Amino acid sequence: MPKLDEGAKGVYLITVTPFRDDGALDLDSLDRLTDFYLGCGVTGLTVLGVMGEAPKLTAEESRTYVKRVLARVGGRVPVVVGVSSPGFAAMGELAKSVMDLGAAGVMVGPGAQVRTDDQAFAYFEMAAETLGPGTPFCVQDHPLAYNGVQLPVPVLKRIFQAIPTAVMLKHEDWPGPGLAKLSAIRAAGGKGEIRRVSILAGNGGGLFLPEELSRGADGAMTGFSYPEMMVGVVAAHAAGDVERAHDLFDAYLPLARYEQQSALGLAVRKYLLLKRGAIASMAIRKPGPRLSAADIADIDRLIARQERRLTELG
Amino acid sequence: MPKLDEGAKGVYLITVTPFRDDGALDLDSLDRLTDFYLGCGVTGLTVLGVMGEAPKLTAEESRTYVKRVLARVGGRVPVVVGVSSPGFAAMGELAKSVMDLGAAGVMVGPGAQVRTDDQAFAYFEMAAETLGPGTPFCVQDHPLAYNGVQLPVPVLKRIFQAIPTAVMLKHEDWPGPGLAKLSAIRAAGGKGEIRRVSILAGNGGGLFLPEELSRGADGAMTGFSYPEMMVGVVAAHAAGDVERAHDLFDAYLPLARYEQQSALGLAVRKYLLLKRGAIASMAIRKPGPRLSAADIADIDRLIARQERRLTELG
Amino acid sequence: MPKLDEGAKGVYLITVTPFRDDGALDLDSLDRLTDFYLGCGVTGLTVLGVMGEAPKLTAEESRTYVKRVLARVGGRVPVVVGVSSPGFAAMGELAKSVMDLGAAGVMVGPGAQVRTDDQAFAYFEMAAETLGPGTPFCVQDHPLAYNGVQLPVPVLKRIFQAIPTAVMLKHEDWPGPGLAKLSAIRAAGGKGEIRRVSILAGNGGGLFLPEELSRGADGAMTGFSYPEMMVGVVAAHAAGDVERAHDLFDAYLPLARYEQQSALGLAVRKYLLLKRGAIASMAIRKPGPRLSAADIADIDRLIARQERRLTELG
Amino acid sequence: MPKLDEGAKGVYLITVTPFRDDGALDLDSLDRLTDFYLGCGVTGLTVLGVMGEAPKLTAEESRTYVKRVLARVGGRVPVVVGVSSPGFAAMGELAKSVMDLGAAGVMVGPGAQVRTDDQAFAYFEMAAETLGPGTPFCVQDHPLAYNGVQLPVPVLKRIFQAIPTAVMLKHEDWPGPGLAKLSAIRAAGGKGEIRRVSILAGNGGGLFLPEELSRGADGAMTGFSYPEMMVGVVAAHAAGDVERAHDLFDAYLPLARYEQQSALGLAVRKYLLLKRGAIASMAIRKPGPRLSAADIADIDRLIARQERRLTELG
Repeated sequence: MPKLDEGAKGVYLITVTPFRDDGALDLDSLDRLTDFYLGCGVTGLTVLGVMGEAPKLTAEESRTYVKRVLARVGGRVPVVVGVSSPGFAAMGELAKSVMDLGAAGVMVGPGAQVRTDDQAFAYFEMAAETLGPGTPFCVQDHPLAYNGVQLPVPVLKRIFQAIPTAVMLKHEDWPGPGLAKLSAIRAAGGKGEIRRVSILAGNGGGLFLPEELSRGADGAMTGFSYPEMMVGVVAAHAAGDVERAHDLFDAYLPLARYEQQSALGLAVRKYLLLKRGAIASMAIRKPGPRLSAADIADIDRLIARQERRLTELG
Repeated sequence: MPKLDEGAKGVYLITVTPFRDDGALDLDSLDRLTDFYLGCGVTGLTVLGVMGEAPKLTAEESRTYVKRVLARVGGRVPVVVGVSSPGFAAMGELAKSVMDLGAAGVMVGPGAQVRTDDQAFAYFEMAAETLGPGTPFCVQDHPLAYNGVQLPVPVLKRIFQAIPTAVMLKHEDWPGPGLAKLSAIRAAGGKGEIRRVSILAGNGGGLFLPEELSRGADGAMTGFSYPEMMVGVVAAHAAGDVERAHDLFDAYLPLARYEQQSALGLAVRKYLLLKRGAIASMAIRKPGPRLSAADIADIDRLIARQERRLTELG
Repeated sequence: MPKLDEGAKGVYLITVTPFRDDGALDLDSLDRLTDFYLGCGVTGLTVLGVMGEAPKLTAEESRTYVKRVLARVGGRVPVVVGVSSPGFAAMGELAKSVMDLGAAGVMVGPGAQVRTDDQAFAYFEMAAETLGPGTPFCVQDHPLAYNGVQLPVPVLKRIFQAIPTAVMLKHEDWPGPGLAKLSAIRAAGGKGEIRRVSILAGNGGGLFLPEELSRGADGAMTGFSYPEMMVGVVAAHAAGDVERAHDLFDAYLPLARYEQQSALGLAVRKYLLLKRGAIASMAIRKPGPRLSAADIADIDRLIARQERRLTELG
Repeated sequence: MPKLDEGAKGVYLITVTPFRDDGALDLDSLDRLTDFYLGCGVTGLTVLGVMGEAPKLTAEESRTYVKRVLARVGGRVPVVVGVSSPGFAAMGELAKSVMDLGAAGVMVGPGAQVRTDDQAFAYFEMAAETLGPGTPFCVQDHPLAYNGVQLPVPVLKRIFQAIPTAVMLKHEDWPGPGLAKLSAIRAAGGKGEIRRVSILAGNGGGLFLPEELSRGADGAMTGFSYPEMMVGVVAAHAAGDVERAHDLFDAYLPLARYEQQSALGLAVRKYLLLKRGAIASMAIRKPGPRLSAADIADIDRLIARQERRLTELG
């Protein structure tokens, strides 16, 4: 399996982790889910991310999970593994084991203690040293999920200038500079200040996908439970049909917006994946949200409306 | 002019503050803007909010601004004034002066130092004491704008139980519990645990308006530059036509989403108000965002698409 | 070995983790260090705490470390193990393994995502459920080390009322309410609102030890590199000689203050332990501080002054 | 009165704001307090700082306060006024009025929204522009009081390189890099990277004063209620008697440490100033701490011990 590099593009789907009602890892559902994602046409998978409940797995479960996904994927698409950890020892251990299993690369967000530009850069330098020269990684710029830690443009430039294994940016600085940051990194690549790295869109959890593509994103890395929307939007955009990309995006936007609520989002996502037959239970390990009857009524209405809209759209 | 009370409903529009290109307050535009808002059918105005650049005004300018708005409104709708301040002395001073001028009430968010439930409640107790028994106020629950300070349901209940002048909740805990909080406060009112207070929707800057109305919100308090959307959605909902409310909402959602970007949003809003003829300049006082050519291209595309969609919708 | 319970008292010394110059765990130094601590008269040890560089160890290293300490201690004093983790799965795994090895109990701080009183209580409820009824634990109230998360008095009361395995409070809410919180928890015990739990002092890293003892602390849990000071202060206080306790404390205060600098403190501590012959290297794993020549000059001056003062004191 | 410049040195005492028991400004006490401070030999005063309860004053009270202090000082020492505000308009207004009254300069901390290095620098650029070329200012680097905002060494260098009116650093990045930062700024001045600016020590509220002087601080700017200690330490250090400086410092350290507790400190300070006859009431405006009987017992013991120690010291 080739490793992740600066040319990565398309839709890297951030996976959920299926549990049984009793809380155990559900490996059968994991197979089904993997098939579901691949069936939607995604170009890659990202596992053990924030929405993958990574911190709720034991080290052994994490390895089991990654091994199973890799086996099911069978090399058809690259698999990126989130390895952010409270310390470099654990990060290094997990990264080594998943790369040995056949992962294409890993994803790293900044440490919770980072406060200044120099600290942010130093963190990624140490992470890269920990991972070693054979492990390419995606820089996850997502302050909401990383204790508010900022990776401003000058820091990202330093990272991509100094660290050859930093090959990709997951763009999710939201609420924040958002699209302007994407434009700035792309422009820095265009002017030769940095290598042209891969940038995958995830701002607001994908709520700005068409605009990010217009700014030069190479695709998306996020976790909406209708991956076919992202695949379609990226394809339409690549084909030059920007209005079609927006039409498709707009049809799914009301539900996508609902799924991107930070507190409740994972429960919405698992409910939708359950309804779509991709997993067998919507169980979430503690601490985690739970849908109310009112939430379900909201979602069911949005699904019905989305179906009508898609029919109209053709 | 009657004062704000628990029965408030409809759309309280959060106003921007128009400046001239040289940065001075633009009182002529303020008149035009007030007319524009009233022309859209709003039921109230909220001035000197976060998006009103309140901290960038001198005390004198704040008074001038409020006086001018009140004069133009001429008692047709109630005007609520944001009075959050770093200390109670300044809060009390501003509140007294605007109530004397004829404001219907004020809006208060929690102090930046608040960390625990008891501190949050104590803060509002001290605020109420500062404001005095003749000044009704709206509790602004908006962690993103108030240094991450949380007002969980038990705190809100204590506030509404103990403080008779706390008559309204501006619901904007997002990203956060969002809709579940609205349901909980409404349910507490239903069970008689607290008075039935007014709840105005603002979650995600209005991005969940139809769902908030379904949960029992009495209207909206936020600042989208197409106030007629909110007026229409609230009216359709009140008339029982929930699908129509969603249809209208969905037509504006792509642009509303773009305007609610936290860093750039105010610039988007002023650009739209300028385009709509409501203000004469999109100037923002420092520190503030500025639109790039790419931002403007995004917005113009979204406007065109919105117009087409509205035509289809009829 | 008896398990930790509400009657725990004396000095629980928070250990450092000795590394070799090449960064490997130094188990020989660990034996020497354990002997050194026990030789100072400590009543217990707390390992894998914040100052023990816990997140920088792999899971395997953590177990090796705990096993070695327990073997060297040989049941002479209880050993408490820090098990705070980003998720409950890892917490449960580590806690089980160290309790099986013979630890007396564990220590748990609040999760980084906790914001409200209810969330804080729920976190400890879930932690207790994860740990199980056979694992007593110490509640670590240390916002500076736990992402600013607060455990106000009402939350601590709920924890000690509802959770029988929560037997101890490590009191370190500083800067913050500090001594008032200790008094409040002690008073709640006195009034029968909660069980009388063990409270070990650590406010400001021990910089308020005599005052905390006066408020009813049962001893200290912190990591100054002159443990004999804490042992002596606690003993003098227990013997009713409060002035002697202060005399002893004051003699060490200038150096203790220097060692409690948050960014540099661990490097100061390892330098002092090296000078005292307790460890073979002052190596710290990344990311970590490093002493400058000016720092060393400061410390050496403070040591010399401390020795003179102790001679005067007799 | 000459304006503040890079040559400032000695002890700039941060003043409290005396209130009467009924909460009104106590201008008679203010005169007495001013005399008390000057009688201790301070070289300057800093008013309306964090410990001066600045946000609790109305704009009018702030001006009254500054006017009264300036009148009483009568030009004998420079007076610096804290002007940090939530917006530049209020900052500019207050600064203009106090400079017109005869202040020597102002003090500015970073805005609460600052997150990145570029934002921190831009904030001070805008502040300097707001203040104008005739108003020299002190950069207050005090994350605990400014919402955790960091001013790392590269940012401070940029500020002192680019902004001629930034003439002084109040060094109080604690807990944080502390002394290393002072050394770095001093070294940058030595190497000609920046002008040699004035650096006044305040780390931990003065708890590292002797070490800061050894690193090149030009004096102190903090608010211990025994200003004669700071005057004495600075004088001994300037005279080359470093051990004497430490002796004096150590004698006051136990009480100084107690006064520097962040939550309770202001109440301790006002109690001590009341006992020393400098003010007529220990009233603090809300929200503020209040001493318990146990706190007072602690303080009284520490005063008695301090007096004995000073007698021994001679």
